[in-house]
Amino acid sequence: MEGLVRCSANYVPLTPISFLERSALVYGDQTSVVYGNIKYTWRETLIRCTKLASAITQFAICYGDVVAALIPNIPAMYELHFAVPMAGAVLCAFNIRLDSAMLSVLLKHSKAKVIFVDYQFLDVVHGALHILSKSSSSLPQIILVLDEQSIPVGSEMSPSRNLEYENLLAAGNPEFEIRRPKDELDPIALNYTSGTTSSPKGVVYSHRGAYLNSLATVLVNEMLSRPVYLWIVPMFHCNGWCFTWGVAAQGGTNICLRNVIAKDIFSSIAEHKVTHMSGAPAVLNMIINSPVDEKKPLPNKVVVVTGGAPPPPQVIFKMEELGFAVIHGYGLTETYGPATVCVWKPEWDALPPNERTKIKARQGVLHTGLEEVDIKDPGTMKSVPADGKTMGEVMIRGNTVMNGYLRDQKATEEAFKDGWFHSGDLGVKYPDGYIELKDRSKDIIISGGENISTIEVESVIFSHPAVLDAAVVGRPDDHWGETPCAFIKLKDGCVNVTDADIINFCRDHLPHYMAPRSVVFVDLPKTSTGKTQKFILREKAKAMGSLIHKKPSKL
Amino acid sequence: MEGLVRCSANYVPLTPISFLERSALVYGDQTSVVYGNIKYTWRETLIRCTKLASAITQFAICYGDVVAALIPNIPAMYELHFAVPMAGAVLCAFNIRLDSAMLSVLLKHSKAKVIFVDYQFLDVVHGALHILSKSSSSLPQIILVLDEQSIPVGSEMSPSRNLEYENLLAAGNPEFEIRRPKDELDPIALNYTSGTTSSPKGVVYSHRGAYLNSLATVLVNEMLSRPVYLWIVPMFHCNGWCFTWGVAAQGGTNICLRNVIAKDIFSSIAEHKVTHMSGAPAVLNMIINSPVDEKKPLPNKVVVVTGGAPPPPQVIFKMEELGFAVIHGYGLTETYGPATVCVWKPEWDALPPNERTKIKARQGVLHTGLEEVDIKDPGTMKSVPADGKTMGEVMIRGNTVMNGYLRDQKATEEAFKDGWFHSGDLGVKYPDGYIELKDRSKDIIISGGENISTIEVESVIFSHPAVLDAAVVGRPDDHWGETPCAFIKLKDGCVNVTDADIINFCRDHLPHYMAPRSVVFVDLPKTSTGKTQKFILREKAKAMGSLIHKKPSKL
Repeated sequence: MEGLVRCSANYVPLTPISFLERSALVYGDQTSVVYGNIKYTWRETLIRCTKLASAITQFAICYGDVVAALIPNIPAMYELHFAVPMAGAVLCAFNIRLDSAMLSVLLKHSKAKVIFVDYQFLDVVHGALHILSKSSSSLPQIILVLDEQSIPVGSEMSPSRNLEYENLLAAGNPEFEIRRPKDELDPIALNYTSGTTSSPKGVVYSHRGAYLNSLATVLVNEMLSRPVYLWIVPMFHCNGWCFTWGVAAQGGTNICLRNVIAKDIFSSIAEHKVTHMSGAPAVLNMIINSPVDEKKPLPNKVVVVTGGAPPPPQVIFKMEELGFAVIHGYGLTETYGPATVCVWKPEWDALPPNERTKIKARQGVLHTGLEEVDIKDPGTMKSVPADGKTMGEVMIRGNTVMNGYLRDQKATEEAFKDGWFHSGDLGVKYPDGYIELKDRSKDIIISGGENISTIEVESVIFSHPAVLDAAVVGRPDDHWGETPCAFIKLKDGCVNVTDADIINFCRDHLPHYMAPRSVVFVDLPKTSTGKTQKFILREKAKAMGSLIHKKPSKL
Repeated sequence: MEGLVRCSANYVPLTPISFLERSALVYGDQTSVVYGNIKYTWRETLIRCTKLASAITQFAICYGDVVAALIPNIPAMYELHFAVPMAGAVLCAFNIRLDSAMLSVLLKHSKAKVIFVDYQFLDVVHGALHILSKSSSSLPQIILVLDEQSIPVGSEMSPSRNLEYENLLAAGNPEFEIRRPKDELDPIALNYTSGTTSSPKGVVYSHRGAYLNSLATVLVNEMLSRPVYLWIVPMFHCNGWCFTWGVAAQGGTNICLRNVIAKDIFSSIAEHKVTHMSGAPAVLNMIINSPVDEKKPLPNKVVVVTGGAPPPPQVIFKMEELGFAVIHGYGLTETYGPATVCVWKPEWDALPPNERTKIKARQGVLHTGLEEVDIKDPGTMKSVPADGKTMGEVMIRGNTVMNGYLRDQKATEEAFKDGWFHSGDLGVKYPDGYIELKDRSKDIIISGGENISTIEVESVIFSHPAVLDAAVVGRPDDHWGETPCAFIKLKDGCVNVTDADIINFCRDHLPHYMAPRSVVFVDLPKTSTGKTQKFILREKAKAMGSLIHKKPSKL
């Protein structure tokens, strides 16, 4: 077709930076960020981010350089989500639970040139740089983020003027010309996969993917304009499931919390009339089990998006009892956070509550930003039958799948084999196309030749009234290969519950072979995003050795 | 950054086809299209469109070929919005008010290979092909769209089996492999600019632009999932302002209407619980002035998006009195429909109603899909001061601006001069960044060296209680150059209103020089999308000649 052109009038690389610029104009007077007594408008946030971007470039930051951060959910972490890309750089937001050893490994791998660090984690960074200095001559520049809500400014911690966040920002140029991506597939963020396995990989997000996933997140979570979003999910986790950029797209208000505790969650909701929040099932569980005097009635409908781990139906049920509207999504770091959502069908409203929550615990159907989500046999790449029973691997393709693993061509190629992203999760597909996770490939228990979904066993254990938290792993077994072993944390005051109680309860609700054969009462090891670290539990179960079978027990 | 790849796992050309496929899965049982007794679900719509796409390819349709349509807002027109792109072709939906002569010109220019035509317009197409046959040896294939809601199937009109829409579709292959765009900038639609000027141009839309504008339209018009959308704006007008594809993105229900009459609008709203509709101010005016017995109370909040011409504040006011929530957008065919939206600020709620509607009549701020909208001096390309007074040309850039004018490199280059799309509209910018149109460049009246915005004069005339419709153009004047001349249609029963009444009314509400000097009571000539054809009125005013000035009258 002749007569057509591509020029700056009709083509602009997609980038979330556009959301900030538009909100500064359209929602200029609207509150953008709230943290304690601190409040900014969208107009102010654009100015602050522009100044910060200009200041970042002073550290010889060029297009594609990595700028790291070790900061909780406070305004600085939010602002860096725009300022770093606006400096042409790539944001690498680290998990604040990292220790110095792991941080040094990731700093080295990322080649970060600058690291912004919250005062709480300065020692961890110093430790990491000390380790790093043994093998590297160039160390990242530290910029300290103080926090006047928490510690007095001007304490002995104050660094030299231009190496402290607010001072650096204040000296920035508000007329700085924003560096836009040259190509929309240029990287915007680097996110290391968090610790359910022991080998983190650097997942690279593009400006295009971030733009599209932000809009999709807004759409599938039914966010109108001017939402009020409470920050519970860490911004360092898939860039806050892209809500960082999504809230900007809709001119919303970000309510920041340094510490995620039930009391502050309920009072923030009441004070700011929160409309949306997100959190892993473990956080919802904490909310449910918080003391009565910390709970406050909700002032309006609050949508809570949960994901990051399969939510036990009981957790969904109890959140809805508290008045929250739960939306359940599923995804991975590699898919910018949620990739599927359990879109609710009106006819399900008529089901009894326990049926409803069981359905809502399904991982559902693809997000608006994706092209296809399927359950396939990884050997043949054929779709499994949509019978709700046949297990296969969850596979995903579309624009909101990562660019790849940084400096790991081999892992990238494996992940994208046959043109699909291989999630490593096992699941089934129902006749209506909704998927349900059964396990991580490596978590599934094989006992006497039968697959046992640890998620199914955990769901039953969670419905026991005394259980606060639970995880099931395989325990090596001389006879069966493996048998299910449950690690359980009981609620306060439930000291009389025994392992036999739990086992019998499971046998009442599950096929005999799926019920745990051993139960350990313990605090579960967690990642910072609330995921149980099953590899630690598997080691514990391994150390326990095989059950002793006098004669082959009935399964 | 090493280790990254682009492959089918993480890159898919953006196209609205994805919306249909997703809705067929996620909202499979939800009603997609309603027309009288006809009802389809999203699952059925995908199957029908796939079959239709396969059938279209039988006519030797290749990637990039044009498939035309001359069809009102009935299901066939909706389905072609997906089926034609799914055949790899470009949809050219013609204005159903075209006559044979104009249609023959456009058919020739578009090189359409196939034309789908509603039975009502078959004679027009036959006439056009007759004209075309004199200069061209290859004529487009006609496919007839019958309509069992309107005429008995099997009447003498029935063509040979495979040249009738439903028969053609029925023979299609439901397993047809959908042809996706090879590049997301490939064309999806061709829309001829409609008749406010006499030289139509072929505006080309891309799959990417259509995808992004559809999502932006959903977002700025506050559409949650499962909206119920009433089709009033013609689908042949900017592809229904991209609501064709946008409603699919949200799994909504399309309520089709062959004829846009107030009675059917009110009964459709009541019957289907419509949540959203769109229409030009002229249609809203028709709704407002419909007889009381045709009006029905609204069953719920109905958002009505208006645009296509500046809405007089009075029209907004009266629609809101009827219970509609008016969202005002502005755009052009070249911007896929609305490009700006008058985003409402909470503080405006406290203003008196006439102030509120005056503000809502502003064209507002950029749409989510765009990058920049500005008012510039076209000579210097400098932004005009944001003072609400200084006029300049509305200029636009971003991903939802057309690819260009088909086979008109010169017009494309002019439109995109200096990297901005030049709208040809004149406007001002307020201190808050909101823009307001003052006139089309060619409509502005220059009287004694003063610019007179015909939109401002029309707004005042519209607030006169006897006025149903009005348009102001310049009348040549020996002394002043031009003076304002008003063409007015009065409401039924208002026969006693005189030209002096109107002129005096305007002088009470406007500076003296802006008030019309001559008034003509007449039916206004309209385009099919409800725009007044000012070029016809200008000719009439020209034919009237100059006012006779005994002595220079006071301005």
